Amino acid sequence: MDRTAFMIGFSIMAIASLVIYATGGKKFPARHHTLMHASVPFIAATAYLAMAFGFGNLILNNGVTVYLARYADWSITTPILLAGLVMLAFSENSKPGEMGGFLTAIIVLDVMMIITGLVSSLAESVTAKWVWYLWSCAAFLGVVYLLWGPLRTIAAERGNALAGAYNRNVALLTVVWFIYPIVFLVGPEGLKIITDPVTIWAFLILDVIAKVFYAFYAAANLEKALSHTPRVGAVSR
Amino acid sequence: MDRTAFMIGFSIMAIASLVIYATGGKKFPARHHTLMHASVPFIAATAYLAMAFGFGNLILNNGVTVYLARYADWSITTPILLAGLVMLAFSENSKPGEMGGFLTAIIVLDVMMIITGLVSSLAESVTAKWVWYLWSCAAFLGVVYLLWGPLRTIAAERGNALAGAYNRNVALLTVVWFIYPIVFLVGPEGLKIITDPVTIWAFLILDVIAKVFYAFYAAANLEKALSHTPRVGAVSR
Amino acid sequence: MDRTAFMIGFSIMAIASLVIYATGGKKFPARHHTLMHASVPFIAATAYLAMAFGFGNLILNNGVTVYLARYADWSITTPILLAGLVMLAFSENSKPGEMGGFLTAIIVLDVMMIITGLVSSLAESVTAKWVWYLWSCAAFLGVVYLLWGPLRTIAAERGNALAGAYNRNVALLTVVWFIYPIVFLVGPEGLKIITDPVTIWAFLILDVIAKVFYAFYAAANLEKALSHTPRVGAVSR
Repeated sequence: MDRTAFMIGFSIMAIASLVIYATGGKKFPARHHTLMHASVPFIAATAYLAMAFGFGNLILNNGVTVYLARYADWSITTPILLAGLVMLAFSENSKPGEMGGFLTAIIVLDVMMIITGLVSSLAESVTAKWVWYLWSCAAFLGVVYLLWGPLRTIAAERGNALAGAYNRNVALLTVVWFIYPIVFLVGPEGLKIITDPVTIWAFLILDVIAKVFYAFYAAANLEKALSHTPRVGAVSR
Repeated sequence: MDRTAFMIGFSIMAIASLVIYATGGKKFPARHHTLMHASVPFIAATAYLAMAFGFGNLILNNGVTVYLARYADWSITTPILLAGLVMLAFSENSKPGEMGGFLTAIIVLDVMMIITGLVSSLAESVTAKWVWYLWSCAAFLGVVYLLWGPLRTIAAERGNALAGAYNRNVALLTVVWFIYPIVFLVGPEGLKIITDPVTIWAFLILDVIAKVFYAFYAAANLEKALSHTPRVGAVSR
Repeated sequence: MDRTAFMIGFSIMAIASLVIYATGGKKFPARHHTLMHASVPFIAATAYLAMAFGFGNLILNNGVTVYLARYADWSITTPILLAGLVMLAFSENSKPGEMGGFLTAIIVLDVMMIITGLVSSLAESVTAKWVWYLWSCAAFLGVVYLLWGPLRTIAAERGNALAGAYNRNVALLTVVWFIYPIVFLVGPEGLKIITDPVTIWAFLILDVIAKVFYAFYAAANLEKALSHTPRVGAVSR
């Protein structure tokens, strides 16, 4: 039964990767958003394939299964999604290196969030599990702070249209990303309130929203914003 | 005997790294191609040293040795080589962030290709081995598509000289990279048609072509292209 | 007792991360140095937390404990510190992609230095331990060469003020980074002249200098340099 969910996840993600690329904008600056959003479900498809074949499905002493492929997936896909938001905030008009600091800080916080989540999942003592979970949440709050604080201000300086696209994308991503640690908390790796299959389906739905629906939503927001900012939209090539 | 091949590999790569740096262009834009091409054999030298000392040489239950250092090497060196091609296609005249989408997409596909190749190598069931091998090939086709499709078009817009350099480099790399999965397929990690020592020597020859010969070939093509495009070649510093 | 050192390390690094961000410049180009320098102790805090909880503390057959979290920390934090120096040398005025080659080469050498240091630590035979240690030192010399050779020349072209900041930062970092391999060499992972607790405290002091003191020192040098170079300092936003 679990395998069914994983194969559905694989199929959706593999097809979504192709469809996002095929239907996405192919001209600068929409093009690199298309390429980044098509990359994300390709990674997720590979992770679902690994989970379906049992590769990296680690069974702990307490009987809980930790899906390492999930964490590997998240540690690459979430930085790509955040990089897309940083690039949107700066609207491709930045000076070289200007985005470098934000990319470094937000990706560091994000990857630390994922790794410490995995460590929490693997921890045997209750104390360690909670300390790592809270540290992971602290890193997540750092990500949220950068998205809603300084980066939102920078996006606002680029004009109403692009700021609107940035705000809508960040809002959706923040809401969806807030649900992941809750599912983790109540699932087998945390308080064990919900079972392994329920967790798998919950993450599958979240993944489809955060990686597939989000890609189309973000592309539509960007396209609308570009049509309202002729100066940027008119860039040749 | 295997150790001999590995020490030869180490020596060639270590010396090549120094020679590529010493003889390469030190002015922008040739400089960063020099630095990238000198980095590649340094990583390969380290991987060959690891294989010579048996570090990361994993012996599976079926008696096959998987050289983890090889996959670690490839997962870093192939993105660097692809990044060099993306930079060549854009000819250093892009706007900030313009290359970001292509770098993300091609490196994601490429790293997924290497990782799933490793998973195929480790897989015990025949079905899993083939599924992972084919998924790895799908990722490779994605890389080839980006190189020969959109990136080739972008390179063509930069003028005949740079487009020629791009096309020659991509052609060599594509041909050589097509042979790797064939050697993998017929080697001990795949169909076991050729032996472990033969595979080691085959990969050594391929590595020398793809990492050392290619570096000199690409540098010569770039230099020739720059001498035909004074506008770019004349950039100060 | 070891745990005390690790919890002190965690506390210093966690607080330092917040203080560096809170007190650092928030305008371009100081901003991205602030963000990068605040990211570094956040990673170190996470690594100290892992060591305190025993996560990744590997006990070898010979009784020596290898702290894997340290190497994971170093393999991310040292590239960030080096990237900051490369960006300082180019002073944010570079063309897109111009820094790419240096970033690739210096990060490749640096990460190879860390990984081969770990391999040396894990090696059982004396020969292997020394070969890996020397190869790690060779990579370190490559990093030092790039910092004091070509990058120093590039920084010098940006004017006296910025060159001075670059030179002071590189000087401090080089001195501190030279002490790390010496502590490693005389510690339990090398010649076993000093004990595990002494090594832990020595690395803690070095980490505070290299990650916390350095952040304030580098920020002060950059600020002083920017106040002497109105052209760059006056950039809007």
